[in-house]
Amino acid sequence: MSRTGVSRTIDLRSDTVTRPDAKMRGAMADADVGDDVLDGDPTLLELGERVAELLGVPAALWVPSGSMGNLIALLAHLDRGDAFLAPAGAHVLDAELGTPAWLAGGMPRELAHDAGPGKVSPAAVLAAAGTPGPYYTLRHTLLCLENTHMAAGGVVLTVAEVADLVAAARSRGLRVHLDGARLWHASVALGVPPAELTRGVDTVQVCLSKALGAPVGSVVAGSAEFVEEARRLRKMLGGGVRQGGVLAAAGLVALDNIPRLADDHARAARLAAGLADRGWRVNKPDTNIVLVDPPSPAALPEVLANWAQAGIAAGPMGGRIRLVTHGDLTDADIDAVLDRIQSP
Amino acid sequence: MSRTGVSRTIDLRSDTVTRPDAKMRGAMADADVGDDVLDGDPTLLELGERVAELLGVPAALWVPSGSMGNLIALLAHLDRGDAFLAPAGAHVLDAELGTPAWLAGGMPRELAHDAGPGKVSPAAVLAAAGTPGPYYTLRHTLLCLENTHMAAGGVVLTVAEVADLVAAARSRGLRVHLDGARLWHASVALGVPPAELTRGVDTVQVCLSKALGAPVGSVVAGSAEFVEEARRLRKMLGGGVRQGGVLAAAGLVALDNIPRLADDHARAARLAAGLADRGWRVNKPDTNIVLVDPPSPAALPEVLANWAQAGIAAGPMGGRIRLVTHGDLTDADIDAVLDRIQSP
Amino acid sequence: MSRTGVSRTIDLRSDTVTRPDAKMRGAMADADVGDDVLDGDPTLLELGERVAELLGVPAALWVPSGSMGNLIALLAHLDRGDAFLAPAGAHVLDAELGTPAWLAGGMPRELAHDAGPGKVSPAAVLAAAGTPGPYYTLRHTLLCLENTHMAAGGVVLTVAEVADLVAAARSRGLRVHLDGARLWHASVALGVPPAELTRGVDTVQVCLSKALGAPVGSVVAGSAEFVEEARRLRKMLGGGVRQGGVLAAAGLVALDNIPRLADDHARAARLAAGLADRGWRVNKPDTNIVLVDPPSPAALPEVLANWAQAGIAAGPMGGRIRLVTHGDLTDADIDAVLDRIQSP
Amino acid sequence: MSRTGVSRTIDLRSDTVTRPDAKMRGAMADADVGDDVLDGDPTLLELGERVAELLGVPAALWVPSGSMGNLIALLAHLDRGDAFLAPAGAHVLDAELGTPAWLAGGMPRELAHDAGPGKVSPAAVLAAAGTPGPYYTLRHTLLCLENTHMAAGGVVLTVAEVADLVAAARSRGLRVHLDGARLWHASVALGVPPAELTRGVDTVQVCLSKALGAPVGSVVAGSAEFVEEARRLRKMLGGGVRQGGVLAAAGLVALDNIPRLADDHARAARLAAGLADRGWRVNKPDTNIVLVDPPSPAALPEVLANWAQAGIAAGPMGGRIRLVTHGDLTDADIDAVLDRIQSP
Repeated sequence: MSRTGVSRTIDLRSDTVTRPDAKMRGAMADADVGDDVLDGDPTLLELGERVAELLGVPAALWVPSGSMGNLIALLAHLDRGDAFLAPAGAHVLDAELGTPAWLAGGMPRELAHDAGPGKVSPAAVLAAAGTPGPYYTLRHTLLCLENTHMAAGGVVLTVAEVADLVAAARSRGLRVHLDGARLWHASVALGVPPAELTRGVDTVQVCLSKALGAPVGSVVAGSAEFVEEARRLRKMLGGGVRQGGVLAAAGLVALDNIPRLADDHARAARLAAGLADRGWRVNKPDTNIVLVDPPSPAALPEVLANWAQAGIAAGPMGGRIRLVTHGDLTDADIDAVLDRIQSP
Repeated sequence: MSRTGVSRTIDLRSDTVTRPDAKMRGAMADADVGDDVLDGDPTLLELGERVAELLGVPAALWVPSGSMGNLIALLAHLDRGDAFLAPAGAHVLDAELGTPAWLAGGMPRELAHDAGPGKVSPAAVLAAAGTPGPYYTLRHTLLCLENTHMAAGGVVLTVAEVADLVAAARSRGLRVHLDGARLWHASVALGVPPAELTRGVDTVQVCLSKALGAPVGSVVAGSAEFVEEARRLRKMLGGGVRQGGVLAAAGLVALDNIPRLADDHARAARLAAGLADRGWRVNKPDTNIVLVDPPSPAALPEVLANWAQAGIAAGPMGGRIRLVTHGDLTDADIDAVLDRIQSP
Repeated sequence: MSRTGVSRTIDLRSDTVTRPDAKMRGAMADADVGDDVLDGDPTLLELGERVAELLGVPAALWVPSGSMGNLIALLAHLDRGDAFLAPAGAHVLDAELGTPAWLAGGMPRELAHDAGPGKVSPAAVLAAAGTPGPYYTLRHTLLCLENTHMAAGGVVLTVAEVADLVAAARSRGLRVHLDGARLWHASVALGVPPAELTRGVDTVQVCLSKALGAPVGSVVAGSAEFVEEARRLRKMLGGGVRQGGVLAAAGLVALDNIPRLADDHARAARLAAGLADRGWRVNKPDTNIVLVDPPSPAALPEVLANWAQAGIAAGPMGGRIRLVTHGDLTDADIDAVLDRIQSP
Repeated sequence: MSRTGVSRTIDLRSDTVTRPDAKMRGAMADADVGDDVLDGDPTLLELGERVAELLGVPAALWVPSGSMGNLIALLAHLDRGDAFLAPAGAHVLDAELGTPAWLAGGMPRELAHDAGPGKVSPAAVLAAAGTPGPYYTLRHTLLCLENTHMAAGGVVLTVAEVADLVAAARSRGLRVHLDGARLWHASVALGVPPAELTRGVDTVQVCLSKALGAPVGSVVAGSAEFVEEARRLRKMLGGGVRQGGVLAAAGLVALDNIPRLADDHARAARLAAGLADRGWRVNKPDTNIVLVDPPSPAALPEVLANWAQAGIAAGPMGGRIRLVTHGDLTDADIDAVLDRIQSP
């Protein structure tokens, strides 16, 4: 594989491109299924139990997408017009097509990253939440965290950071939702069980279909009461399925892939280091997301086009280039990418 | 298998209990997939094209459930507070947890069955739609049809009946959505292609996971513009999936099952006749749904309990007992049911 | 004043055309006011207290319109997608532009008049409310009554009828909202205090600006908790005003007009009798609304046009002609109307 | 009046406390009125025409509150989930109880004041609006301006600043709504007609009940099509009134008060200068709003309490003390305030 030969494009646009592997496909073919709306599908139920245990919470529910998972959590937490806080760049702010407002009726309040990229301080939470005012004032009821914080480059919140933010929120009477679409990555990067990263939060959403490779699906988790409400909201939104066990079976295999994320992280680190060697300005990735500055803002489209021609699929994010490592890549792919990319 | 021996329960509660067969499971395992949000999944696209062709409309889109399909159609058709007409007992009125109002903002208006069970007359549509009033009056913008009409016992609307209702709606400026969760059944019962039953309607929803046996999924169809909007609405509702081709592959196999529905209809007819022979008051099923009157309204729970003990799972619907034939049943199952049920 | 001379048009379209009288205008000019959002306007507060006392409930709140009053009550009672029952023709079904669905998220269920014009039986409430189903079924949480029932011709519900309907609703766990836009008329017609007609209901809306003659305003009433929530909802909907005391002063005068409604009722009775004498088919009005059948459905526009030319303003309602008596009419006006109208 | 004697509290909390004067009350008592829903109230219509002319737009509509006016504009401009931009501290972001999200379904995006207090640069609008993305991305469709910008201390946008912001918005395909609750103040401060400050914007909301002294009411204005839609939305929200001419008459008198705002501005300037002389850190007010820093953030409640005891009603805003001059104040009141306030 060389820059001059015919070569397969290496897709670094997102970890959502990961394809189900043979083991996962086999599990889908063999899945034990039932009518989930009427009876509960046995494999969907098994998946819920296993994720709840992993996250250290009482109950969990499969949903077709992370967007639906976050939306269900917002619906459960927010009353009409309630404000929720989230760090700038959060998925619930930028990547859910305005549904936190339109469908959940929530008023978003963006928090600047005052504690480093992807991080907000407990003081910022306290200041934004304010104190309850008279009846004619906006009510703040929720803090949304995102771990890892994708838009900042897969930044990890530590157990202590989560604890401090949760404490700040609680002191103002806010509830806490954790968008953990890549919580597995944070867990692996920190070397702590996922359950350590959910302490004190009310609800969590985790994804099965990003780097873990399940074709479809996320899970929302929390108290038994929340999951009961989530089940109803899922049906309302059109996410109630019948023999969903075929997807849950893939999800169960996906959970076995969590330790493999360490390889994705190592490859992202090597990719970032290689790009820096070639003169590119890059982040130092905590996990599997590399952010590269174009030589100038105006040059971004040209860089993407050049890389595409060289067989590297990447995408723009907030004025930078995003490269994401995932389960369909090998060490050789990273070598090839570094081989194909020239200095800026 | 006898009333006294240990026997498998025969599940006639719904055709949603149908399980994916081996061929379908194999197709899922072998499916060609891609990231549908970023690129379009090849198998999801293939399914959309095939259903559009079957329905005789320009475009079609896979959705996780029929509820989401109907909801997307209502969202596309209704402006804030617009009224929509639907025959009494329609799924959009009774079985979608109020989301036509809450999420689509639509004001339902129920039409009585003035033209036989499950049927409304064009005159009733004209009367209910009225004529446009001043700015401070309710606007009527949509007629929802359901073919077959489930709650009335799988009642079939003929090509001529659909045409007359569509004409009435058009004459009042209404658009028309067809909930075709069991449109395949109508097509088979009438011996006409599905496309004959969608003439003049704006949007259609069809189901892959009822008697056709796909584990998950429905399809919404209509103009290219509608499907473009539906794709965005699907993402907003949380129904955008990544490697959905695994489910679309099952859907493609499911479509091959359409002719098999004739067997379900024959079995329903035989079941109804057998029950009538035994003294039960039943409908004469057009398709795969048998409705049985309990001896008295108060006796309904007892009948269901007796039947459950005899190994027959059935459910209540509108004060009657509903028995649904589907792909997991055999002729022998019908024999067994008739063997197990005594006179009222 | 004669059919041939130049004569003032007599406006019988609605009692909403009633103009504020000199006493009311004087009260507005002299009203004690304050900033209601910041401090509570003293005259708005006085009005709330007086209406609460009249209705026999703990608290009440001025709102700019009956539509906002009903909307606030629905918002307070309904959770997302909840169904509410209302008699056919109710204002909340037909005359609020779909906002019970769009804004309150409620799924309306129309009850046929099975107990006489404008009246539904307790049995119909029981049947429609059903019993709570599994998580994937529609929830019924509210019964809306309307007294008098306008669309049926100002039909009065008696104290006993209200009690029986409330009891039926309660037995199914439903709450009850009373749209009392013309509750004053029912009270006068029955000769009972308004508070007798609100027994057991959770919330009430009454109107100051129909036959009572206030230029603007209605009142919603119920528990102290409800009124606290209503105050917030009113602000959200844009109905929070500053020196609203000018309108409340008119409302206080309007309340003094309640006994005068007996004149409106007498005039409606005389008008109906006179029309019957001339060969028209009319209702026997309970209160101030006369409904006249056109000779044939197709003749309705012609009748209205003829009457307009004769100096009588009336309007269509549900295929009939509606004539409403109100405070700006005199006995002589009724004489003049009967003088101007010929036989059908 | 002295610090030691018994003295009337001077209310500087807001200009919303302004009471209607005798001329206004007389106009209300004499107003020509009609049923606005059925026929159009003549005085409401006259007010709409006069405000439209003042603002240089085709049409205008009375609404019960500025909140309803802004909400109607957002509803008219935003499709489901659309994002709208607004400068930090804008009324539509902070002071409407989340209804821009809950009721209008809009996703707010706050713009930092990068061009001075209360001001955002055209570059910031361009950056935040971005360029249209694929179907699965957030859509930006509206820029909301606020002139004067209240939370920044009544800051005036000049004609040129408005023009540049409108041009930036247009270049990204955004529409523009102007919250002109205090547009009259900007007009007076700049010495330009209000119509110069609405050039290129799509919709405007102006207030009659703040410093102008009408008891109730605002006006939304724009194209004839917008006002037609606004009329319907006003009815839906419960803001359709019957004989609203009594309030419109007060509004017409209020418009005569616009030139008087120069006195409010002069008094605010004198108040700010006097406070600065006494050692307080204050803004240099463009219009009628004075913002005072407490000696330390923690000292704010104590300062407010001391002032209240001295007969000065003020309120907190964003960590500062807000003092607002208005039509119920005299030069002597300002003297008294400066007499009562000691050094920090």
